[in-house]
Amino acid sequence: MTTTRPRRLAVLASGKGSNLRALAGHARAPGFGGEIALVLCDRPDAGAIEVARAHDLPVETPDPGRFRTRLAPDAERAWVELLRAHRVDTVLLAGIMRVLHADFLAAFEGRVLNVHPSLLPAFPGVDAIGRAFRHGVRVTGCTVHLVTAGVDEGPILMQQAVPIEDHDTEETLAERIHAAEHALYPEAVRRFLARPFTLEGRRVRWLATGVR
Amino acid sequence: MTTTRPRRLAVLASGKGSNLRALAGHARAPGFGGEIALVLCDRPDAGAIEVARAHDLPVETPDPGRFRTRLAPDAERAWVELLRAHRVDTVLLAGIMRVLHADFLAAFEGRVLNVHPSLLPAFPGVDAIGRAFRHGVRVTGCTVHLVTAGVDEGPILMQQAVPIEDHDTEETLAERIHAAEHALYPEAVRRFLARPFTLEGRRVRWLATGVR
Repeated sequence: MTTTRPRRLAVLASGKGSNLRALAGHARAPGFGGEIALVLCDRPDAGAIEVARAHDLPVETPDPGRFRTRLAPDAERAWVELLRAHRVDTVLLAGIMRVLHADFLAAFEGRVLNVHPSLLPAFPGVDAIGRAFRHGVRVTGCTVHLVTAGVDEGPILMQQAVPIEDHDTEETLAERIHAAEHALYPEAVRRFLARPFTLEGRRVRWLATGVR
Repeated sequence: MTTTRPRRLAVLASGKGSNLRALAGHARAPGFGGEIALVLCDRPDAGAIEVARAHDLPVETPDPGRFRTRLAPDAERAWVELLRAHRVDTVLLAGIMRVLHADFLAAFEGRVLNVHPSLLPAFPGVDAIGRAFRHGVRVTGCTVHLVTAGVDEGPILMQQAVPIEDHDTEETLAERIHAAEHALYPEAVRRFLARPFTLEGRRVRWLATGVR
C-alpha cells in the first residue's frame, strides 16, 4: 500500500441490515483499513437504517426512482453525487436489490464489492439459497466479488463453502449461509483494502505483502 | 437393506484408471457392500486395463463403435449384454469419455453413478478443472451423482469442496481434486450400497440406518 489513509466506505442496503451490522462491527477494529462513511438505503423502512443509527453511522435514503429492481438513471446520478459528497471511494453492496449501471460502476471503477449467498458461478441472481437447496447440492456457500455490469459475474475475491446436511431445511441452511457471509464479507473487505492483487483474465490473485 | 448379498459392480473407464484404483482398493474392504465384477474400457490402450489386471479384476474392451464421444447404438446394446452376462447391477463411470443413452440407463435404472471434478452444477462437461481455475473460483471440488440423460445433471449423492489457493496452478489444483475424487467416490458408492435414500424433487436425502 502506498497510503495508510483509511478508505472511505459506503454500504448500500435494502433489507434487515445483517451484513451492515457485521461490517460495522469489523470496521471499528484496528487495522481494518477503512471506515464506513455513509449508509444508503433505497427503502425508508429498511431495518438497515436502524442498524446504521445504532452504530452511529450516517445514513440517507435517497429516492431510487420509479423502478423496482434498478435505480432510475436520474436517481443513479444523484446517488453517485451523494457518495462523492461524502468522499466515498469504495462501495459495499449489502443486500441491495437493485442492479447498478455502467455510469455508477465507472464512478467507482474496480471498487464496488458485493456478497452473494452461493458459490458463484452456481446460482447467480435471486433466491440463490432456495435454488441450491432444491437442486440438492451438498456444498454451497457464499462469494464476495467485484461488481461488473453482469449480475453476480465479477471477479471473485473470496468464497466460503457451507455444507448442506440431510436434516437441513431451507431455513437452517439460510441461517448458516448468512452466518458465513457475516464472517466472510468483512474479511474480504479487510483484505481488499490491505492487499494488492492482480487479475489474470478474470482470476483474482492476491499478492503477498509484509503485512499478513 | 433387505439383502446382504454384495452388489455386483462394473467400472467403466477410458483413461489412466486412477478412480478405478481407488474403487478397487476400497471394494475389498469389509462392509463395502459390493464387489467389482467387471471393468470395461473403450480404449484398448487405457491405463485402466493395467490397473484392473493388477487388482485381478475381469476386464474387457468391447468395441465402442464409430463415434468418439458416445457409444454407437449397436455397441451400447452389446455393452449392456456384456454387463448382464456378468450379472452386474450397478455401473460406476470412472472417467469414461462417452455419453450413455436412454436404453443403457434404463437397463440399470437409478444404478449408474459418475464422479465429476467440480461442484456441480458449476462447470459441467469437459475441462471442468481448467474452467473453474480460469473462472477464478476460490472453492471448487468434486461431485458423485446419479447419471441421467443430461450430461452431469443427475441427482447429487455427495460432494467434497476443494479450496483454490493463490499459489495454485491448474496442475496442482487437478492433483488435489483427483485426490478428493479418490476418497469421495468409494465413500459415495459405499453409502449408496448401504443406505436407502429418498428423492425430494431432485434432492437426495439419505435415510438414517442403524448401520451408519
